[in-house]
Amino acid sequence: MELKKIDHIGILVENIEASLRFYRDQLGLPVKTIEANEEFKVRIAFLPIGEVLVELVEPFPDSPLRQYLKEKGEGLHHIAFEVDDLKKSLAELKAAGVPLLDEEPRLGGEGALVAFLDAGAANNVAIELKETRVGKEA
Amino acid sequence: MELKKIDHIGILVENIEASLRFYRDQLGLPVKTIEANEEFKVRIAFLPIGEVLVELVEPFPDSPLRQYLKEKGEGLHHIAFEVDDLKKSLAELKAAGVPLLDEEPRLGGEGALVAFLDAGAANNVAIELKETRVGKEA
Repeated sequence: MELKKIDHIGILVENIEASLRFYRDQLGLPVKTIEANEEFKVRIAFLPIGEVLVELVEPFPDSPLRQYLKEKGEGLHHIAFEVDDLKKSLAELKAAGVPLLDEEPRLGGEGALVAFLDAGAANNVAIELKETRVGKEA
Repeated sequence: MELKKIDHIGILVENIEASLRFYRDQLGLPVKTIEANEEFKVRIAFLPIGEVLVELVEPFPDSPLRQYLKEKGEGLHHIAFEVDDLKKSLAELKAAGVPLLDEEPRLGGEGALVAFLDAGAANNVAIELKETRVGKEA
């Protein structure tokens, strides 16, 4: 399996607009998009820096992530690596004995396909694999 | 202040060699360097992916980070952004009211200058600024 690059770094926040006062106004990162994702029940803001996006993740009130946020607090949440073929990558990792949270691709932002590995195998780091669909046939 | 790119993402681990079984052998990331840093009392491994490094951080037994590791466990620890002029960036952030952990640059890996901001201002994310010294005069 070949990882192409880090697509984004996810930061869990209470409120995107409040967080932008630091990440946009003080660190100087531009805001590319702010959108809702119904699959994960979150609002997300993408702030590009070089070839990577900083992703601010604000869970909906009814999102399982809202409970996680209450218990663990805000902070670094996951790293997402870009892959060419998500289904193939998941099959290869599974064959190598890597435990997966998502055995099948789910719908991420901007139509991407995404899946999370089990953090237990990765020193407690939540790792997302992402296949972008921009420019690809449906 | 202008951030140039994400230099690395720091992951706190108990033992670098054990962690390489996942990050190198299963995810397929190459290992660029493994070195000790006396300033921070840690061993670090850098694994390049695109323009970013994944940094595995293993605290020495007498490092303050070892206590943090015992209490919080392994996991995502910090994001490091590259800047051109660290002293200037720190002065600008301080003037803008951003709280700093390190008011003066410290010695990071490969001779770089580094400083941490106070995570309290950044949704509990530890942010490092890094000025690489490769190719610069002393």
